[in-house]
Amino acid sequence: MPELLTKLSFEGKVEMLLASPDRDAGLEKHQVAEARFLFTGMEGDCHGGITRKSDVRMVKQYKRNTEVRNSRQLSILSAEELAEVAKVMGIPAVKPDWVGANMVLSGIPDLTLLPPSTRLQFPSGAMIVVDAENHPCRYPADIIAKHHPEQKKGFVAAAMHKRGVVGWVEAEGVIRTGDAVTIWIPPQRLYSHA
Amino acid sequence: MPELLTKLSFEGKVEMLLASPDRDAGLEKHQVAEARFLFTGMEGDCHGGITRKSDVRMVKQYKRNTEVRNSRQLSILSAEELAEVAKVMGIPAVKPDWVGANMVLSGIPDLTLLPPSTRLQFPSGAMIVVDAENHPCRYPADIIAKHHPEQKKGFVAAAMHKRGVVGWVEAEGVIRTGDAVTIWIPPQRLYSHA
Repeated sequence: MPELLTKLSFEGKVEMLLASPDRDAGLEKHQVAEARFLFTGMEGDCHGGITRKSDVRMVKQYKRNTEVRNSRQLSILSAEELAEVAKVMGIPAVKPDWVGANMVLSGIPDLTLLPPSTRLQFPSGAMIVVDAENHPCRYPADIIAKHHPEQKKGFVAAAMHKRGVVGWVEAEGVIRTGDAVTIWIPPQRLYSHA
Repeated sequence: MPELLTKLSFEGKVEMLLASPDRDAGLEKHQVAEARFLFTGMEGDCHGGITRKSDVRMVKQYKRNTEVRNSRQLSILSAEELAEVAKVMGIPAVKPDWVGANMVLSGIPDLTLLPPSTRLQFPSGAMIVVDAENHPCRYPADIIAKHHPEQKKGFVAAAMHKRGVVGWVEAEGVIRTGDAVTIWIPPQRLYSHA
């Protein structure tokens, strides 16, 4: 029987965890050493919840503010991809708190291209499911431009396919900075009728 | 900006809806003309819930009976694939209630191969997200063998990659027999580091 999920041969590592208790404060977040991840999302972060209101990203599927299951509880980015984006923008660094990251991982090549339904597993037993690639938009772009008006290229163009993924908590547990991340991916194939 | 989800050029159709109020009664379900689909799953069906206990399918990821988010609220199968399976098995039909289906759709080629995070949209606004392909196992195989001891090939072998998908409710609404189904798929690509 083929496997439902296959473990990748390499592991990632948790480089940074960030939370923002207040959505009105904007995207910018503060760093924490560890956090509990619950079915409602990251404890202490304002993007949690079992459901949320649909936003502009889903405007082709839903009227704005439709109550939908929250598959965007968490924003997960790659340390290496952030460094590549900064290089293209001609700035020293893109700080994770500028782009609303909850988690920065290292050691996962092309993290942004991990397939939907990929599972990220942590030593405590916590498990996060990837729903989708995240797309760069103007909110972080505006924050970065404020910090680095000298940028050579804008964030939206520089960060396409390097802006990480969004996901939701499948199993609860604590995640700590320095944790190893085991990656499980679903069968890889293209749907030939699209 | 590339789209997060792309609408397929064809639609599916809801051929049958089935529910089973009692898990102890086994997989076999009864037909309903319509049903409400809630964040907890299909109203009146025993596989609902925001969370569930992990089972043997996830034994490589979780100890048995770990509380996990329920991404298997619904079992969705293809009328055409069920007919193909029956033909290979040498029996007149594989009845959807024998295999634990909540929904049978027509008009979606290779439904079982729809990618994870595919969205199935219904006229009421109800939306179902595909988590994963379902794999045939011995429970439905035993039920079918009981009804058709003369079968030429067993269900597990005949139904591989034709046993449908499992998923969860992203937006609530009523789904009715005869409804059209609009299909939205995520970007198609293979992760090159697997």
